Amino acid sequence: MANKSQVTPEEATLQKIVAHAKEYGFVFPSSEIYDGLQAVYDYGQNGVELKNNLKQIWWKAMTMLNENVVGIDAAIFMHPLVWKASGHVDSFNDPMVDNKDSKKRYRVDHLIEAKAYEYEEQGFPDKAAALISQMNSLLEKEDFEGLGKLLQEEKIVCPVSGTSNWTEVRQFNLMFGTLLGSVADEASVIYLRPETAQGIFVNFLNVQQTGRMKIPFGIAQIGKAFRNEIVARQFIFRMREFEQMEMQFFCRPGTEMEWYEYWKEKRYKFLLALGLPAEKLRFHVHEKLAHYANAALDIEYEFPFGFKELEGIHSRTDYDLGRHQEFSKKKLQYFDDEITDKAKQRYVPYVVETSIGADRLFLAILCNAYTEEVKINAKGEETKRIFLKFHPAIAPVKVAVFPLLRKDGLPEKAREVFEQLRYDFNTIYEEKGSIGKNYTRMDLIGTPFCVTIDHQTLQDNTVTLRYRDTAEQVRLPIAELNSVIEKEVSLKNIWQKIVS
Amino acid sequence: MANKSQVTPEEATLQKIVAHAKEYGFVFPSSEIYDGLQAVYDYGQNGVELKNNLKQIWWKAMTMLNENVVGIDAAIFMHPLVWKASGHVDSFNDPMVDNKDSKKRYRVDHLIEAKAYEYEEQGFPDKAAALISQMNSLLEKEDFEGLGKLLQEEKIVCPVSGTSNWTEVRQFNLMFGTLLGSVADEASVIYLRPETAQGIFVNFLNVQQTGRMKIPFGIAQIGKAFRNEIVARQFIFRMREFEQMEMQFFCRPGTEMEWYEYWKEKRYKFLLALGLPAEKLRFHVHEKLAHYANAALDIEYEFPFGFKELEGIHSRTDYDLGRHQEFSKKKLQYFDDEITDKAKQRYVPYVVETSIGADRLFLAILCNAYTEEVKINAKGEETKRIFLKFHPAIAPVKVAVFPLLRKDGLPEKAREVFEQLRYDFNTIYEEKGSIGKNYTRMDLIGTPFCVTIDHQTLQDNTVTLRYRDTAEQVRLPIAELNSVIEKEVSLKNIWQKIVS
Repeated sequence: MANKSQVTPEEATLQKIVAHAKEYGFVFPSSEIYDGLQAVYDYGQNGVELKNNLKQIWWKAMTMLNENVVGIDAAIFMHPLVWKASGHVDSFNDPMVDNKDSKKRYRVDHLIEAKAYEYEEQGFPDKAAALISQMNSLLEKEDFEGLGKLLQEEKIVCPVSGTSNWTEVRQFNLMFGTLLGSVADEASVIYLRPETAQGIFVNFLNVQQTGRMKIPFGIAQIGKAFRNEIVARQFIFRMREFEQMEMQFFCRPGTEMEWYEYWKEKRYKFLLALGLPAEKLRFHVHEKLAHYANAALDIEYEFPFGFKELEGIHSRTDYDLGRHQEFSKKKLQYFDDEITDKAKQRYVPYVVETSIGADRLFLAILCNAYTEEVKINAKGEETKRIFLKFHPAIAPVKVAVFPLLRKDGLPEKAREVFEQLRYDFNTIYEEKGSIGKNYTRMDLIGTPFCVTIDHQTLQDNTVTLRYRDTAEQVRLPIAELNSVIEKEVSLKNIWQKIVS
Repeated sequence: MANKSQVTPEEATLQKIVAHAKEYGFVFPSSEIYDGLQAVYDYGQNGVELKNNLKQIWWKAMTMLNENVVGIDAAIFMHPLVWKASGHVDSFNDPMVDNKDSKKRYRVDHLIEAKAYEYEEQGFPDKAAALISQMNSLLEKEDFEGLGKLLQEEKIVCPVSGTSNWTEVRQFNLMFGTLLGSVADEASVIYLRPETAQGIFVNFLNVQQTGRMKIPFGIAQIGKAFRNEIVARQFIFRMREFEQMEMQFFCRPGTEMEWYEYWKEKRYKFLLALGLPAEKLRFHVHEKLAHYANAALDIEYEFPFGFKELEGIHSRTDYDLGRHQEFSKKKLQYFDDEITDKAKQRYVPYVVETSIGADRLFLAILCNAYTEEVKINAKGEETKRIFLKFHPAIAPVKVAVFPLLRKDGLPEKAREVFEQLRYDFNTIYEEKGSIGKNYTRMDLIGTPFCVTIDHQTLQDNTVTLRYRDTAEQVRLPIAELNSVIEKEVSLKNIWQKIVS
């Protein structure tokens, strides 16, 4: 394994972004005054605005751009049978092993992957590949004894104790359980949902019937999900508590591949429209499919730690509805009066899912926005400017208003301009500090526009409008400010790129 | 106790609203195909839009109308010490008792209250009052033995088994616990937060410092909280999983009563601005204060089941920050450079809290919107029209567009109008069904505007705009539609009523 004291350039970039996120009110470690809670984070005053903007844009892109998609908001608590039907109770497990000396628990595949990585570092790529392939074959057969033997054969040791004094390999369920109810004897274990999708499936009939939905149609949902990840890591990329934005699209059996292609295209356009560049996005088609899927791909984003899953597009067949039909004994079918063959009119719909993590999207947007610009100034010195180049539509704060000086009636005039802007945009007013420092501060939180009121303003009602990305300034009548800014921050810019 | 088969008029009204909420896609019982999960509900396609609108308006009213209020979004999972410091581990309990025959568990105060109610029904109000007063005195002293004796003396029986074969009275904590982490031996119990406020307190310093906030300032948050209520009831009024909208306002010690009055006023105006009528709102000032409070009141709304707490305004002193300071060993103080007396410059701020349940606000808005209008028609017959008279700014769907007929080019023209509206408002297009039925359907989900395209439209580009509350129709040029509707649904209508 790599020496912990060495920091790769990729890790350094991530560390810089993590530090920036904390220092400028985007993401704080949870319960930080109590030294934090591992793999749990809180969104700060700027982070929450960015995240809310992303959630709202996703929501509207789903429900407003698609006439046949509506939303729901199902509870985190669900009936325990839901997770029996979905397969999570029986197979949402990872093979784990405990070191008897350090008492630490590990995912077996992570230990073996680390060993393979070691082989590679030592110049034995074939050995590494063979080990991974052997592991995959054991995992597929669920041969836990074989995995245990492999640990011993490869002399894999615990990074903490340094020993290979391992327990047996066992399954460990990733769902968080809790006890619901009033009567101790009857109190039932319920789970914090490990995904939001099932909340959509169990409400399929309710929405279809009360909303008179015609197939094909979709149900979108944003909400928290929870997984007791053993190794949660990479900042907010993999957390134990996270937020999903999922849409399940119900269609006629046999049409699912068309819709799979359709949503793949739409979702890719969505990510581009938010400002993620094409060269940092790629499709990764799954070769090994989950038992319920007949097609699946990830849209990957190139994070500082490499290309990783940002969004999944899955053709889930009729598996989920079929399972709930079986376990609930309720018919989860659709009557399709557009089909002429009466024998085929009633069916369990097929489902194409799009699933993106709100936190992962936030991280991708933040990483992409973080910009260090080095320039040579007039004196021949290197100057560095850091700014977050968010698309104006998603920036936490849209405009900041500053009087050039705290006298001569400039603050009063600036307040007037602020009042004119604040009900249309998230606007900040600041009269302390120098203009230069205020610009810098706005760059650091990604505010796309700064408006400065100076003495000329008092004469001709014009102001300077500064653009974040170019640091260019233009002179503009106050009367035009709202419409100039509105044009840039309008969601219609995003919609155009998705609809086209 | 009242006979269960009798339904009071109040219960009948609530039942009607519950049924309407389900039938028109506002609120579904959770996991309904599995026969539901007690006291947990899901929001349907119209409910989620209404709830999101309410959340967004609250958020903007806090962060946009108040320059010195910013938001955060803290995780549901927090460090276990947070709940030790807040007092929830030790005292977020209710005294409970189990019946040994039925194995049912009850809150002792609910059992005794039911008995008092019985006395009242039998015409002994004095006896009822004495019992309640005796109970309160025992509860205050935490005299569980005394409460147990009172159950026996009053011959209170279990409604299920009919016996008074009770266990001892014990404390029962209302927090949901779960196990976090990778190592079984070290796995620590963490709690699902029972309130969102603590997420604000532990982030006080992070927000103050990274946001350079000056006292007085507030931090707002919307998020889920969880309480293992023994008797959860009254639809979405008291649920085990619910959503809070809380704001903690940090101020200089000694100024808290001014701010308490300020927020009381602002919050009352907010509720009025959403359309809740003054006669259904009242203040209920707490006589018995929690140990941390020096003033507290509820804004109550008259639900079908009586006046109940909708929002709480609490002056919480420096209790919470002080406790976190004690438990975390971190200084949670503010340096106030506007104070000249150097000895008093550093202090733990005082806090005024405003706390409203998003679900309760949803229920109040729904109850208030539900309207049954009885008229006598031209033939002298009684006709009933049901509609939801939501303020246009919060209605789930804003506009519906219908062609009068499915021919003569009317659908094509109607699609044009739909395209003109859909990016500005949540808009529905429907070409099936009669216009009358479509109007009725929009009334039932509370859509404020319906636009109908007829033959005249093809000639002069005018349409009929129908207003939900009056069912009046006006003829209007298509070019004016967006601005006419925008005026009515604009959030500025709400802001004006709060700011004034």
